[in-house]
Amino acid sequence: MGNPSSLLWKLNYLTSFINGNVRRPIITLTTDFGGKDPYVAEMKATILNISPNATIVDITHQIEKFNVRMGAYVLASASPYFPKGTIHVAVVDPGVGTRREPILIQTKHSYFVGPDNGVLALAVRKVQIKHVYRIINRKLMLAKVSNTFHGRDIFAPAAAHLTNKTPPAEFGPEIDKIIIPRFAKIVRRGNILIGEVIHVDDFGNIITNLGEKELELMEIDHTVNVKLGNAKLALKLCRTYSEVQLHKPLALIGSHNLLEISINQGNASETFKVEGGSKVTLHSP
Amino acid sequence: MGNPSSLLWKLNYLTSFINGNVRRPIITLTTDFGGKDPYVAEMKATILNISPNATIVDITHQIEKFNVRMGAYVLASASPYFPKGTIHVAVVDPGVGTRREPILIQTKHSYFVGPDNGVLALAVRKVQIKHVYRIINRKLMLAKVSNTFHGRDIFAPAAAHLTNKTPPAEFGPEIDKIIIPRFAKIVRRGNILIGEVIHVDDFGNIITNLGEKELELMEIDHTVNVKLGNAKLALKLCRTYSEVQLHKPLALIGSHNLLEISINQGNASETFKVEGGSKVTLHSP
Amino acid sequence: MGNPSSLLWKLNYLTSFINGNVRRPIITLTTDFGGKDPYVAEMKATILNISPNATIVDITHQIEKFNVRMGAYVLASASPYFPKGTIHVAVVDPGVGTRREPILIQTKHSYFVGPDNGVLALAVRKVQIKHVYRIINRKLMLAKVSNTFHGRDIFAPAAAHLTNKTPPAEFGPEIDKIIIPRFAKIVRRGNILIGEVIHVDDFGNIITNLGEKELELMEIDHTVNVKLGNAKLALKLCRTYSEVQLHKPLALIGSHNLLEISINQGNASETFKVEGGSKVTLHSP
Repeated sequence: MGNPSSLLWKLNYLTSFINGNVRRPIITLTTDFGGKDPYVAEMKATILNISPNATIVDITHQIEKFNVRMGAYVLASASPYFPKGTIHVAVVDPGVGTRREPILIQTKHSYFVGPDNGVLALAVRKVQIKHVYRIINRKLMLAKVSNTFHGRDIFAPAAAHLTNKTPPAEFGPEIDKIIIPRFAKIVRRGNILIGEVIHVDDFGNIITNLGEKELELMEIDHTVNVKLGNAKLALKLCRTYSEVQLHKPLALIGSHNLLEISINQGNASETFKVEGGSKVTLHSP
Repeated sequence: MGNPSSLLWKLNYLTSFINGNVRRPIITLTTDFGGKDPYVAEMKATILNISPNATIVDITHQIEKFNVRMGAYVLASASPYFPKGTIHVAVVDPGVGTRREPILIQTKHSYFVGPDNGVLALAVRKVQIKHVYRIINRKLMLAKVSNTFHGRDIFAPAAAHLTNKTPPAEFGPEIDKIIIPRFAKIVRRGNILIGEVIHVDDFGNIITNLGEKELELMEIDHTVNVKLGNAKLALKLCRTYSEVQLHKPLALIGSHNLLEISINQGNASETFKVEGGSKVTLHSP
Repeated sequence: MGNPSSLLWKLNYLTSFINGNVRRPIITLTTDFGGKDPYVAEMKATILNISPNATIVDITHQIEKFNVRMGAYVLASASPYFPKGTIHVAVVDPGVGTRREPILIQTKHSYFVGPDNGVLALAVRKVQIKHVYRIINRKLMLAKVSNTFHGRDIFAPAAAHLTNKTPPAEFGPEIDKIIIPRFAKIVRRGNILIGEVIHVDDFGNIITNLGEKELELMEIDHTVNVKLGNAKLALKLCRTYSEVQLHKPLALIGSHNLLEISINQGNASETFKVEGGSKVTLHSP
């Protein structure tokens, strides 16, 4: 590639940058901070101080307060779509300032930064983890670290320093496992399969932790027999919402390959009084 | 301008870029996805994979679920302010996965990408349409296209490919018309004019589809006689909210040149129990 | 540093830009516009027309309608974290179109643009103000200025022109003071100190205008005796939320060095029925 100090090399590098071949680093944010406070902006300001070229993408700041399960689900859903090298920061952190560890996970595809309380666990479940580090290096944090806002003081700076080629091992000692939360298990009992609601989206779609594999296992094909709260339903397994009449319920494999219970242009979660964590029972046909 | 492979040409190009003369492409997003789910971030991730230099601007993701009218209004309001060449993506898509067509509209000023269900129609009403294409080229979509999320799988990639100079005609066959929704008509009956509420904004301002032209037609000058729901009002036509006392109602031509009914530092929509689609009747003085 | 027209100078400038040493200008936005309307996008579009390389950061658009106090607090909290040279635009503007002046404040660290109604006042209280200008130069506004939306027509263009090196003095005449709002005073009466709630955050944390200094003055150390609405509380002064049991109240010096009343994983504001502006009374031990 020639000599990096030559004019031609520099020019080609610059042209590559502009053409998008040298990509601006991407940092995503997933928090339960809501939209009305200065907290998210303080994280972004901290990032831009250290990494002025970063592209910051909000995944969401509307995770329910302290709902680690929901944060983990949303991050796991969105993160696979981002370019290689993206740095994902997730802060749903009821134990901020206590003994839970700030960690940095390096996978084959991306980086994940946040508290070791399960919020990162679903996102890295299906990818190859290369290294996990505790974040303890004070030089890579804000000068003054508060006890109540590690998003701004520890996690945002860590993500920003990563974009500046700080080697992950400089953040702290390597550790060999992360906390795996207990949510979202699947249990089989004879001809029934018990899973749970992992997320209710803003349309009221009920997203379960049961995937295509589980439906095959139960030999479910055209009709899904499901118990949701007090309701026993026999739902058509559809490809689109509009295969049933307006305001009628249906089942489908949603855009994340998970079984969803929906109502065509309606709100399934309100209708069936179901929320994240509710039990979902599938019966064989 | 000289030889594109010369050092000087490249340098001038690069300097132009940095000085903002070669602009980064802008893609806007208008959806009813809300703020708590991974869906918007998945669209942005998809865009950044294909078009890493794009500037993505959220118009809003708080369109009421399935409210094509509101999506069309908000897009039509915001889009004229964006720079030439901006690509607008709108996804309010109750018929996703059914026969409604994904389309791309090229106007003299911009591009519009979304379902052909009316959501793009108001924005292109007052501008010169150059071409309309169906989007059917699978090579310009995500590798796997779901039946429930064309925002991520079809519309976001289309917008991103446009920034990379993919010719619009490569997306699919040209078509000669788009669906024009029936909302927002104006009817005259003798000395009354019947329009409708096209939007209630977050301040509770009631925005009608009646413009300056209609007020002139009715020879309305100082006082607006209007029936809104059950209320008959004689409102002062003001230039600013503060021309009436605190918490008193007024009429004005708002920032989009449309008649608005407001309450000075109050919420007109709650007071008069009016929502999008409600009838608005104007009487001559 | 050599001759700006030489190849080498240009290359070094370009490389500096890409390496983040020549920073893209940052413009922040703080408004009460909410998330569902086209207004915020119109401000961003206006900025990008004038300043295509600007990085726009939303501080928040969820300030309570017309709540200048809350806007001032949130801006004052977030602004110190942004890089030198950042331009902050704040629009909480109940008097839009009336006699209140649009102003531009130049501090040692940043710029602040908005109405002179107090919304900028807290942010510049602790920094060195260099100049204040009225914004009256029509050439630096949108071609057509509405009476109801100065955010888009005056403030966004002003911020964008500042990034293009327009000298602040070109916006209008220098003035020598800004309006200082009366909120957030502290009164001492014998052994009690009366302050107020300046913000209730999205977690329900009650943030007061009493800081570390006031706690020292009252010789408060381990226990905070505080009256909040009808509740008389003796709260442990903690370093982290988790120092008290789940759902128990506590006091702490929050991430902005102000006394906060919180409930561990609960909502203090709902529990104690307190909102912005409520009185907070501290008693000596």
